[in-house]
Amino acid sequence: MEEDILYHFDLGTVTHDFPAMFGDVKFVCVGGSPSRMKSFAQYITGELALGDSKTDIPNICAGTDRYAMYKVGPVLSISHGMGIPSISIMLHELIKLLYHSKCSDVTIIRIGTSGGIGINPGSVVITSQSVDASFRPQFEQIVLGKTVIRNTDLDSNLALELLKCSTEINEFNTVIGNTMCTLDFYEGQARLDGALCSYTEDEKMQYLKAAYDAGVRNIEMESSVFAAMCNITGLRAAVVCVALLNRLEGDQISSSHEVLTEYQQRPQKLVGFFIKNQLTKK
Amino acid sequence: MEEDILYHFDLGTVTHDFPAMFGDVKFVCVGGSPSRMKSFAQYITGELALGDSKTDIPNICAGTDRYAMYKVGPVLSISHGMGIPSISIMLHELIKLLYHSKCSDVTIIRIGTSGGIGINPGSVVITSQSVDASFRPQFEQIVLGKTVIRNTDLDSNLALELLKCSTEINEFNTVIGNTMCTLDFYEGQARLDGALCSYTEDEKMQYLKAAYDAGVRNIEMESSVFAAMCNITGLRAAVVCVALLNRLEGDQISSSHEVLTEYQQRPQKLVGFFIKNQLTKK
Repeated sequence: MEEDILYHFDLGTVTHDFPAMFGDVKFVCVGGSPSRMKSFAQYITGELALGDSKTDIPNICAGTDRYAMYKVGPVLSISHGMGIPSISIMLHELIKLLYHSKCSDVTIIRIGTSGGIGINPGSVVITSQSVDASFRPQFEQIVLGKTVIRNTDLDSNLALELLKCSTEINEFNTVIGNTMCTLDFYEGQARLDGALCSYTEDEKMQYLKAAYDAGVRNIEMESSVFAAMCNITGLRAAVVCVALLNRLEGDQISSSHEVLTEYQQRPQKLVGFFIKNQLTKK
Repeated sequence: MEEDILYHFDLGTVTHDFPAMFGDVKFVCVGGSPSRMKSFAQYITGELALGDSKTDIPNICAGTDRYAMYKVGPVLSISHGMGIPSISIMLHELIKLLYHSKCSDVTIIRIGTSGGIGINPGSVVITSQSVDASFRPQFEQIVLGKTVIRNTDLDSNLALELLKCSTEINEFNTVIGNTMCTLDFYEGQARLDGALCSYTEDEKMQYLKAAYDAGVRNIEMESSVFAAMCNITGLRAAVVCVALLNRLEGDQISSSHEVLTEYQQRPQKLVGFFIKNQLTKK
C-alpha cells in the first residue's frame, strides 16, 4: 500500500512519520479507560524520572474519540474501550503502527479491572491462560463467516517476572491464574443484576464455582483476543488486572470511589515497577 | 434490590432520583462516539427549539469515561463505544434506567457509521434485519457457558416511517436492507488491510458478494445485540447507519475529514426530522 490510514487512531503513514514518532517504543500498556491510560502515562513519567507526573501529556489520537494514546519515553499508553471487538480494532492498528515504525523487542501489557472469583477485592491477577466461557484456552475468530480457533497462551516467563515485582513491592496480594474472557458483562458473567436474567442464584454459583475449579481467578472482556493476536504476531504479552469484587460474594461493584481508585492503581504500580526494573537493567 | 448501581453510567437509584431525571424520556438515540452523541444532543436542541444548538450540554455520566449521556427534553443521547460487548453493557444499564424511571412508550434508534456493500459512500441504510457473519438473522448470546439464540428483527413500521422521512428531506440516498453485524472490523469484515489476513482478494470479494446476494447492504458491529435486547424487552427499535465507503471498492476509509463529517450528520438529520415529526403530531 502507498498509504496506510489507521482510521481509529486518526494517524496515517503519509501524514505522520511513524519511525520518528514511535521508533523507540519498547513497552506498550493498554487498558479500557482513556482517563486511566492518561494517568498511567503521567505516573510513568514520574517513575522513569522523565518529568513531573502532574504535567499534562498530549493525546496523540486527539483527532478521534475512539481511542486515546500517550507516549512517555519508550512507553506507549493506549486505551482500548470495552470488549473483544473494541480491543481487536486497536490491536490491528497498533501492530501496524509498530511495524511501520520499525519497532523491535516490544513487550505489551494489558492493565485492567476485572471481577475476581474466590479472591479478595483488590487482589491483582496475572493471567496464565485466557479461557472462554467454557473454560477452554482458546479464542474463536470468525473469518469470512467461518470459525477459526486461536491459541490464548501468554508469556509464562513474563508472568513470573511480574509476580516477582509484586513480591518486591509487597503492598497487595497478587496471584497467577486463569482469566475468563466473556462477550458480556451481565448474562455472560452470570450476574443476577442485569436487565435480562434467565437463571437462578444456585445456577450462577454452580457456574462460578466450576470456573474456580478450572483455575479461573478473574473474569474480564478483552484478554482472549489480546493473547491470540500477540501470540500470532510474536509480541511478548501479559495481562494484569485487579479484581474490583469477589463474584462469589455478589454482583454489584459497590465499593467507594476512593477504594476503587486505589485498586485501579495497583496494576499501574506493578507494571510501572516492572518497566523501571527492565530499563535499569540495561 | 435496595439499591441498583449502574456502574458504567456512574448512576445509582439511591444517589439519583431516576423518575425526576428521566421520567419524560420518549426517544433514546445511541451511537459509538461520545463526541458525535454530544453534537446530536446539541443538534436536537435546535431542531426542537429547546435552546441554542451551540450551547454546551452537561454529560450526565461525567463521573465515568465509559459512556457519555446527554438529555434534551424527551430525547436521551448516549454513546456506546465499539462492538457488541460495549453496547450490551450500555443497553443493560439503559433498560434498567428506563425501568427505574418508570418510562413508557420509548423508541430507541442507533445512529452510526458502517461499511456499505454495493451502495455509494454517504448512503444511509435503515436495517430490516441484523444478520450474523453467515447471514442468519440471529444473535448468539453465551449464558452460563451455553449458547442461546436470539431473534434480531427490528420494527418494520418504524423502518418505513424513517424511510418516508428521508424521502421528505430529499438530500441523500436512503435504503432499507439487511445489516451484517460482526465481532471484528478487519478479519471479521473481510478486510485485506488488517495486521492479520489469511485470505486472498478473490475470497474477500466472493464473501462480500454473497453478503450482497443475501440482502446485506452494510456492515457494522452493534446491531445484532441491540435488536435482540430491544426485542426481548419490548422497545421499539431501529438502526440507521451511514455507509462511509463501498466495501466492493476498497477497505480503507480515506475520504477527507470534511466529507466524513458530513456523512456522519446524515443519520442525525434523518432521526432528528423523525423525532420532530413525532412530537409535532401529538
